[in-house]
Formats: sequence, structure tokens, C-alpha cells
Amino acid sequence: MTAGRDLSLPPAASIREVGPRDGFQNEPETIATADKVALVNQLARTGVKRIEVTSFVRADVIPQLADAAEVLAAIDIPDGVSRSVLIPNERGLDNALQLRSRFDEVGVFLSASETHNQRNVNRTVEQSSIALERVIARAREAGLRVEAVISTSFGCPYEGAVDHERVLAIARRLTEFGAQEIAFGDTTGMANPRQVRAHFEDARAALGTDVELTAHFHNTRGQGLANVLAALQADCASFESSFGELGGCPVPPGATGNIASEDLVSMLHEMGVQTGIDLDALLDAARAVRAVLGRPLGSHTLVAGPIRWRDSTGG
Amino acid sequence: MTAGRDLSLPPAASIREVGPRDGFQNEPETIATADKVALVNQLARTGVKRIEVTSFVRADVIPQLADAAEVLAAIDIPDGVSRSVLIPNERGLDNALQLRSRFDEVGVFLSASETHNQRNVNRTVEQSSIALERVIARAREAGLRVEAVISTSFGCPYEGAVDHERVLAIARRLTEFGAQEIAFGDTTGMANPRQVRAHFEDARAALGTDVELTAHFHNTRGQGLANVLAALQADCASFESSFGELGGCPVPPGATGNIASEDLVSMLHEMGVQTGIDLDALLDAARAVRAVLGRPLGSHTLVAGPIRWRDSTGG
Repeated sequence: MTAGRDLSLPPAASIREVGPRDGFQNEPETIATADKVALVNQLARTGVKRIEVTSFVRADVIPQLADAAEVLAAIDIPDGVSRSVLIPNERGLDNALQLRSRFDEVGVFLSASETHNQRNVNRTVEQSSIALERVIARAREAGLRVEAVISTSFGCPYEGAVDHERVLAIARRLTEFGAQEIAFGDTTGMANPRQVRAHFEDARAALGTDVELTAHFHNTRGQGLANVLAALQADCASFESSFGELGGCPVPPGATGNIASEDLVSMLHEMGVQTGIDLDALLDAARAVRAVLGRPLGSHTLVAGPIRWRDSTGG
Repeated sequence: MTAGRDLSLPPAASIREVGPRDGFQNEPETIATADKVALVNQLARTGVKRIEVTSFVRADVIPQLADAAEVLAAIDIPDGVSRSVLIPNERGLDNALQLRSRFDEVGVFLSASETHNQRNVNRTVEQSSIALERVIARAREAGLRVEAVISTSFGCPYEGAVDHERVLAIARRLTEFGAQEIAFGDTTGMANPRQVRAHFEDARAALGTDVELTAHFHNTRGQGLANVLAALQADCASFESSFGELGGCPVPPGATGNIASEDLVSMLHEMGVQTGIDLDALLDAARAVRAVLGRPLGSHTLVAGPIRWRDSTGG
């Protein structure tokens, strides 16, 4: 549409689709393995280049993902699409490594806030860091790319503000352990665009240009895509989102979690930021998961449909 | 939270609450006059300084607002809160002027796209412009402030792209007629932040500094607050929104319309942009309209609650 001479944005952005892990994990009823496999296969043919497929967690803690090995073994993913699994601890890594050839990346995580980390994994942040050093090293030795996610990077529902320097210090340490990508998670949707812009500028300065910086925003108060815009303006060009707006941290119950991949792709494409994703194909995948779940989903573009520019000046 | 040294935003923004007109008009069942009056009175005590109270339209066309005169006569609004009514034509102005002391501003409107204007008011854009010249002049003579809304400023669901220069030419003409405020409406949620930033920069250059420029965004594809951020960065500091996320143009059916006032206020306050509005009081008003309507509403902050920064560094 418009040239946008004054909004400096990266020409392209990378999107990791986290619905198959973050979304399916948060569904009250476990999705059938065959449905998961079909949905992941469909997502992998939308042009998305990264998919978080599942997580090797304890089945008694998260029964929704008890079929991690089966899903990983069964999916049929085109070359060039990176398969990621989330790893909570060394035991999870051991289990995942039995299927080493079936994935390309691991995600590891801890929280920036002590209280959130304690409630999430029953460890101090220091204990989690020490454990992650070994998990990251072993994943790297196995030839895997490592993304480290820092939850509650922009605020904690229990503690409130999270010290910005503390977040950057945790990030620096994780890169020293060998993480090639740091994702900053706005776990309960407390981030605002002003904070996001400063955060990513500081993170780039603190961590250098060899580390990929990723933004994982939630749409808890409707501000998810505004935070994406602010991150783009700080030259962050890597995002995580979920098809259909599945998943995320439902705090409080009923609240929206992840930003919808369809809404993210729609906005990026409209601004001329390329993703390689076919929005219509992605919407088909979102419709497919809606059919499996049998309920309305939070994605706006799924309801409204993509923008159609009908005349010759349209994009 | 964070200083945000690189995100230049205005220190304060003005919000016009349009729910009592734009929201109530779009409800399938007409809201009782007493409920409308109570809700407007409650909104007027949240700190919001502008409320679009109703519209003087034909009762057979929009029966939901057939009680415009009764509502205007009954509301009890504190000093300093501006009462606005939407006027479709000269006959509507005649009817409104019978209650001249009961309001402060009028809104008039036309569409930038021919097809949308034809479908909305059954006139060409030129016919609408000619009619508005007289309505604006008479409203100004009556001592009223005039806002002119240009619908489909960022795209038309029927025609696709809308020529940017055409929108600016319409805006210039409306200011020559006497409109002191021009609102650019993203009627079906086609605007993107890059376009919005360029648009408001150009509009300011084209229209000068005496005219108030207002942004009326829809959240049709989840991008409403991202467009707000882009408008703020182009020094637009006036917005229209609706409590509870009521109203707006439901194209297609089920799609989200207006941005929610609560979500807008939450994001602005978190960024340090002042509005004068008490977010908790606004959420009370949104809860009140939800109780009247008896259904869930689209506002995110209404579900999630406001952000609570619990420690001493919180905002």
C-alpha cells in the first residue's frame, strides 16, 4: 500500500510455530496422536520454517504430550523445515535423544523471576541455570541447535516488575553455555511496546550479533501485535506464535495466551515484512485445528479472513 | 517500567468513548433507555473526557438508537466531559438541535470509497460532501464543535485500496467546510502500522496543526493496538474506542470491530502516555455493559484484568 518512509523495519522475519507444543499442551482434552501428526504435517507445508513439535516432559505432569516420541517418529516434514522439541531437563533430553534423527533444535527454559520459576519447575533460578548448562552442552554435542527461553522477561504475575539487567544477565549466561538463540517470553502479557523496544535494543547491545534474539509475546491485554511492531523497530526479526491463537499461559483462566500466527503473518505481510508463509495455507491449518477441537478459537484473522486488496494498487 | 529512550510518543492522548453510539447501535436487541443512561453516566465518571452518546438517525433504519432524544435529555454528565452526537444528515441535525443545550459536539461522516459510501448512505461521495458543507456550517453556527469522520480511509472491503491522496483531499475539503477535527476510520480493519504511520504524517503535513487528527481503528485482524502505536509515533494523539470492544463494522459477521477502550487505556498507561482515565473505573463500566448484554465481550483486559506491578519499581 503505502511506502512507509519513516517506519524502519527488517525486510523479513522468522516465525516459529509453537501451537503443536504450547497449544496442544494447554488443551484440557488430549488431542489424538494421529490428529497431531496430520496438523504438524499440514503446518509444515504452509511455508513456515520452524515448528515446535512437542515436548519431552513427564507424562504424569503433562499427559497431553505423553505421545511426544510417537508424534516425532510419525511426522513427515519437508526439507528446510526445522523441527524443535522443548526439553525441561536432562531426563527429557535423554528421552528425546533416542529419536535424535527426528528433530533439529531443542528449546530449554527458565523464568527470570524467582517466584515464577519456583512455581513452574520447583527450583531456584540458580538451580535451573546450573542444570541448563549441562543440558545445553549435551544438546550442542549432539549437533542440535539450542534456543533458550526466558519466561517472565517483561514482568511476573507474582512479583510484578522483573529487573531488566537481571534478564540480560541470565541471557548472557545462557549464551555462554552455548545457546544460539534467546527467546524472551512475555508469559502473562505484561509487556508494553515502549519496554519491548528498549529491551531488544539493550539485549542486542548486551549479547552481540551472533545470537538470535526471539520475541514470544502474549496477547493477554490485546497488545501482542503492538509489541511485535516495537520489537521489529528494535531490529528483532524472530517471533513465536501459535496457529488459531492456541495455548499460552491462561492467567487468569479464560485469558488469551499466544499471539495468533495468522494475525502475526497478516500484519507482517501487510507491512511488507516477508515470512515465506502462505497465509491462506496457514488459515487452512487453523481451520483444521478448529475442526479437531470443535470450538471457536481466538485468532482474529481466522474469523475475519485475510485482507483482499482488489485493485491494482493493492499488495 | 523502562525509560524507552528511542520510542518517541506524545505524553498524553485523548480518547473518545464511542460505545454508547457505535456499540449500542450494533447490538441485535435494543438496550433499554434507562440502561443506556446509566451506562453513559458511569462512563462519564471514569475520567474519559469525550463520549459519543447517540446518533440522530431515522428510527426505521436504526431502531437501536430511536431513543436518542430521551437519552440525551436524561444523562447527567459532569462538567468537562464533552457530549457528542453523530449526525447523518441535515434532518438529523434539525432533530438534534431541539436539544442543543444537551450536547457539545457533532460527528458527521462519509466514506472515502465510492462503493462503501453508496452502500452506506446511498449517495456518491460528492453528494455527501455537498450535503456535509451545509450540515457543518449550521452546526458551527449553533456553536457546536464538529468532527468529520472519513470511513474506509485505509482500505475498502468492496474496492480494495483507497487512494491516499483522495483521502487527504476529502479531509482538506471537510476542514474548509469548518470541521475542527478529522477522524480517519479503518472501517473494516485493513490498516497496517506502516500505512498508518505514513498516513498520519502526511495528514498532518496536508492539514496543518490547527486541525485535530483522530484515529478510529478496528481490531478486525488483531492489529488495532499496533496501529495505535504507529499513529502515536506519527504524533497522532486522539483515538476513538469502545468499552467492552462493543460495536464497529462486523464484516464479515462475527468479526471484531472497534478496539476496546480498556485495552487501549492499558497499553497507553503502561507506556506512560496519560489519558486521565481510571482504568479500574472503566473496567467497572465494561462489566456493567456486559451484565446488561448478558454475553462475553471481546475486550481482553476485561477478561485478564489490569496489570498489577507489585513491587516498588512498578509503574
